[in-house]
Amino acid sequence: MSALIYLDHNATTPVASDVLDAMLPWLGAGFGNPASDHPLGRAARAAVDQARTQVASLIGAQPENILFTASATEANNLALLGAARALAQTGRGRHLIASAVEHPAVSAPLDYLETQGWTLSWLRVDASGQVNPADLQAALRPDTRLVSVMHANNEVGTIQPIRELAALAHQSGALFHCDAAQSAGKIPIDVNALGVDLLTLAGHKFHAPKGIGALYRRAGAPLQPLLFGAGQEQGLRPGTENVAYIVALGAAAALAQARLPTLSARLKRQRDGLHRALEAAIPGLVLNGHPEARLPNTLSLAFPAVTGHDLLADAPEIAASLGAACHAGADAVSSVLAAMGRPPEQAHATVRLSLGAETSDAELERAADVLINAWRQSVTAGQ
Amino acid sequence: MSALIYLDHNATTPVASDVLDAMLPWLGAGFGNPASDHPLGRAARAAVDQARTQVASLIGAQPENILFTASATEANNLALLGAARALAQTGRGRHLIASAVEHPAVSAPLDYLETQGWTLSWLRVDASGQVNPADLQAALRPDTRLVSVMHANNEVGTIQPIRELAALAHQSGALFHCDAAQSAGKIPIDVNALGVDLLTLAGHKFHAPKGIGALYRRAGAPLQPLLFGAGQEQGLRPGTENVAYIVALGAAAALAQARLPTLSARLKRQRDGLHRALEAAIPGLVLNGHPEARLPNTLSLAFPAVTGHDLLADAPEIAASLGAACHAGADAVSSVLAAMGRPPEQAHATVRLSLGAETSDAELERAADVLINAWRQSVTAGQ
Repeated sequence: MSALIYLDHNATTPVASDVLDAMLPWLGAGFGNPASDHPLGRAARAAVDQARTQVASLIGAQPENILFTASATEANNLALLGAARALAQTGRGRHLIASAVEHPAVSAPLDYLETQGWTLSWLRVDASGQVNPADLQAALRPDTRLVSVMHANNEVGTIQPIRELAALAHQSGALFHCDAAQSAGKIPIDVNALGVDLLTLAGHKFHAPKGIGALYRRAGAPLQPLLFGAGQEQGLRPGTENVAYIVALGAAAALAQARLPTLSARLKRQRDGLHRALEAAIPGLVLNGHPEARLPNTLSLAFPAVTGHDLLADAPEIAASLGAACHAGADAVSSVLAAMGRPPEQAHATVRLSLGAETSDAELERAADVLINAWRQSVTAGQ
Repeated sequence: MSALIYLDHNATTPVASDVLDAMLPWLGAGFGNPASDHPLGRAARAAVDQARTQVASLIGAQPENILFTASATEANNLALLGAARALAQTGRGRHLIASAVEHPAVSAPLDYLETQGWTLSWLRVDASGQVNPADLQAALRPDTRLVSVMHANNEVGTIQPIRELAALAHQSGALFHCDAAQSAGKIPIDVNALGVDLLTLAGHKFHAPKGIGALYRRAGAPLQPLLFGAGQEQGLRPGTENVAYIVALGAAAALAQARLPTLSARLKRQRDGLHRALEAAIPGLVLNGHPEARLPNTLSLAFPAVTGHDLLADAPEIAASLGAACHAGADAVSSVLAAMGRPPEQAHATVRLSLGAETSDAELERAADVLINAWRQSVTAGQ
């Protein structure tokens, strides 16, 4: 697999060596249970505390605002179902608003809430994938309790105007949740500047392992637990702490914070170089997503006269996705591209190329050659 | 910390070196998302599949019966809240039964169900901590939907007569859930011989890391998800798979299965040796738990004329717990010891010593000396 060019960082990222180095002691001699009142337990507790501070720092929060979960999926579910459970008790209505391009980890719990007596409004997006704040303004009702809009889309990378959306939600008395699973580590996040009440992080999207996430919760934001047990994480997320992965998330947050400005600029330069190389050779190539307000590593392209599936099959040197990894294998058209008004044939022709910290210029030059050759062969074979 | 004698294996265990070796590649080059349709993704998928087979094998199940979770707490919640959600739809009543000595990861979700319209009956235990099947027989009602009794108690190690209890539940048309978090890897588990519908496993109690658990679900057992997302784990537990820890759980299951017979006998011999050494020097020492039907590694002892807290403070070479790790720091009396009829002063005098695979005879000889000396000093100081 060493020759594989990995351009699927929006699906998952390799664990950074600094992150692995930080976590390994906690899979070795530092194996104590943070609840134990002896030196092994106290060392584990201190490591969890330090990681909480590191994660908080990445997003401009305080340590006590951070709840560790096993995934962004769990953090989104805790935010949405947990807030809904708390809000339902105050009986001022049960209306929710979300964008039409949310990840299933947001849209599926919202669909569940609809079966439990909540009413949902889905905000349309424009051709670039962006929500128009005027549409949120129009959708807000006196009984709207919660608005959830993702920070950046996983398939096309479009960044949403969270600050404006959150301000509108708050003017109307609604909570605001933001799924930042895909944006953390790629663009700056400041929970106070964004004005969000709840924000979701996914470790494996920024070089921590798969199996750790976090939920930012503004102090006092209504939230009830989904799981019940021995009271860990302020009673909001029980279960013996995954010390090693919590330490990993802290280290990944520190790494992201340290290298974000230079990494973000480099990824954008590399991505745009790849885009130009493909554009120059492939007439009719279409970019999905916002031309500027977009994650610096994400390049979702509809190739003319081929399907994305056939193109990637002819480019086995490249590891990439058609859309979201979670939908891999499914033949359905991407709901994100459909919401953006893309016709089905363009959606079927789409490949998502997502770069990462270890992506080299040489890999990208080779990727461009491979993709151009695969496209030419497909087109020739199809004639 | 190298001189610390670790006798707190019921709180958590070190990751076995075989387990660490098995999982590390999946934190390195094998970082793919199992949902990705490229070589890195397919390799991760195959690793998850193999681990599922290994975990199933440990408990006599089929791979498709195994759902991976982030903890035993989550597995217990999924079993209890998920089954309750499924059972509530068939409207044949809402009565639940559990033992009085369940872990908070079982009792707390049951307490939550009580706030949601379910009725609960708690089964008393005898002085050894065992449930009497006749008590279950008497508690079962036509509207009883689910019975939950742990396999072995985390504080005192008492093993419950699960086979009899499950048979009674089934005769009455109720589902049977068993929290085997503390027993797996210490005593044999066969889900078919036990006759359980749902069974919980905790990785970190048998040498996998903290942050991975599993739920056994008999085919067709009513269960609905607690979390919603992209459909992983048969749609019952979404979120990108924690490949490394799933592999670790598989390796830990294989290791447990391979060494269980010899390890179990050795632990029992070592534990009973420690018990005899302490008994010989400390008149009035009281064993908590069943003399025979007890986990082979667990020794819960009430020391005369001291508190467990003071005794452990005077024995800093030993890492052990007063009761459950989850309650460490809390000053409350153990609810398990209270349910067994232990007076408060005996509960306060209790120390839980729990041995593990890497515990040596030399360590136990030293532990006996340290505890005896600490006890003598405490008693002398108190006079």
